[in-house]
Amino acid sequence: MDKLEGYKHKINNFLAEEDFQRKPVNLYDPIDYTLKLGGKRLRPILALAACDLFGGNIDDAMKPAIGLEIFHNFTLLHDDIMDDAPQRRGKATVYKKWNSNIAILSGDTMFALAYKYVGMAGKNLSKILETFTQTAIEVCEGQQYDMDFESWEDVCINEYLEMIRLKTAVLLGASLKIGALAADAPEDQAKLIYNFGLNAGLAFQLKDDWLDAFGNEAKFGKSIGGDILANKKTYLYLKCLENASPSDRKKLTELFSTKPVNQQLKIEQVLDLYNKYKVNEASTKEMEYYFNLALETIKNTSASENKKTDLIGFAEWLYKRDH
Amino acid sequence: MDKLEGYKHKINNFLAEEDFQRKPVNLYDPIDYTLKLGGKRLRPILALAACDLFGGNIDDAMKPAIGLEIFHNFTLLHDDIMDDAPQRRGKATVYKKWNSNIAILSGDTMFALAYKYVGMAGKNLSKILETFTQTAIEVCEGQQYDMDFESWEDVCINEYLEMIRLKTAVLLGASLKIGALAADAPEDQAKLIYNFGLNAGLAFQLKDDWLDAFGNEAKFGKSIGGDILANKKTYLYLKCLENASPSDRKKLTELFSTKPVNQQLKIEQVLDLYNKYKVNEASTKEMEYYFNLALETIKNTSASENKKTDLIGFAEWLYKRDH
Repeated sequence: MDKLEGYKHKINNFLAEEDFQRKPVNLYDPIDYTLKLGGKRLRPILALAACDLFGGNIDDAMKPAIGLEIFHNFTLLHDDIMDDAPQRRGKATVYKKWNSNIAILSGDTMFALAYKYVGMAGKNLSKILETFTQTAIEVCEGQQYDMDFESWEDVCINEYLEMIRLKTAVLLGASLKIGALAADAPEDQAKLIYNFGLNAGLAFQLKDDWLDAFGNEAKFGKSIGGDILANKKTYLYLKCLENASPSDRKKLTELFSTKPVNQQLKIEQVLDLYNKYKVNEASTKEMEYYFNLALETIKNTSASENKKTDLIGFAEWLYKRDH
Repeated sequence: MDKLEGYKHKINNFLAEEDFQRKPVNLYDPIDYTLKLGGKRLRPILALAACDLFGGNIDDAMKPAIGLEIFHNFTLLHDDIMDDAPQRRGKATVYKKWNSNIAILSGDTMFALAYKYVGMAGKNLSKILETFTQTAIEVCEGQQYDMDFESWEDVCINEYLEMIRLKTAVLLGASLKIGALAADAPEDQAKLIYNFGLNAGLAFQLKDDWLDAFGNEAKFGKSIGGDILANKKTYLYLKCLENASPSDRKKLTELFSTKPVNQQLKIEQVLDLYNKYKVNEASTKEMEYYFNLALETIKNTSASENKKTDLIGFAEWLYKRDH
């Protein structure tokens, strides 16, 4: 993990040195603000790690890695408008701090800036670009399904998994693939590492949902039950529905159709049902399933064993983390 | 013009054959709707024309040309949200027909689709990409200045010209440059044709503003005075302010700070001032200035004279058109 922590520092330093304080200020101040909010820097870390995995010089992957991070932050910026989310990483979201129009346009600019950095890839530019664009389209599709699900009454678990595949997992896969391509890895190896990221990404998102219900607030850094209060149809909710008795199913459905004043009571009632139907265990099993798929895929790559260890450790942390 | 009309058919056919009816429907229906609304198809026409100008096969420029058109339509889609515009080309805008969230996200997807097609450029991919990205960033900057100007009290004509350069002209320049690069034209030639488009683009936008005040409604296809009612600080307004007596300047400023019920009266009062201070003539002179700059630039290219004629005719139409 130390190596990957080192990558994170490198990425933060790169972003700190880039000058996003340009004119017009109403366009660039929100960009500068967003990129300096911090975050896990998962996607660029994965890009650098995959470049290293296949024997590349991580400097060759640095610019596409930055592009991936800017892209991710662009999606958060626009998602926050769509989800009406007032806070992100403990600070006001751009559309709250400025306004929706500024958030739309500075987001658009970040998307273009993301391409600026991705376009600076040296080796395999055309393949890297194709991967990035295909992924960007899929991430938008995932966000649309996520919004659609709010009004769909009969979302099934497979549809949910497809949504998180598109919204979250493909970008983790693409980050690794782009890092591999920057190291000039062969197509089949790039594809394997993409699939590793895809499966690790599914486990990662399942863990995100899990933390919202079962996390430790102090470690998690945000309140428990946000998804429950927002009536989000997560894996936990869908699994609970699947397993519950008809009367409990009715109860859960009703709970997820209200926005009550007593929020704490709603959270407790939902968690009681989650516990009754062992949703915690089912979710953990699902995460393990995807983590094991990820493991199998990375084992099939031709990379050196000790380099694989770093990435395997990272993927393990993605679904075992408590924050 | 016949040749360029032929290009327009080719572009419309290409777009009609592309299948944008995909899933999720809430994401792709607005894209399909937008791309089939029609329009002048200026940018892809310019790309194909520049490719032909430098002896290329226009099929080599077709995909980047489509990317440019999709990008332009994406900017319109997001601009319509920001400008609260209910109609575009006589039909409901996406955010009105669907909603803002869908308009944001389908716009984002169109931006990615634009890159998909631009990324299919064969020759000079890296240069084409760099031009496209730089231009996309500038278009966003231009839109931000346009929004900023609403609350700036002291916009000067040079700031206005810089705004339309960014918001409109650079994309016309870039369309030509990308067409030239697709034809493998040398860098200096690509730059010349970019500048031709930049100057023709300034004349084009000045004409757009002019038509809003002095156009023939029947030919123009939309009501006169939209910019006046929206208190837009166009060239006409700024020139009138510059030339007016102190009392008329006060009158014009006051007219542009209200949204009266009697819209027709406001339009008439503003047009009276525009006529009194010969804004029509000043604007026409400015358009001619930029058209002549465009002419000089294209004359300096190494292209064959009869091929230049097509583009010169087109640029002339851009600022002499009545719709």
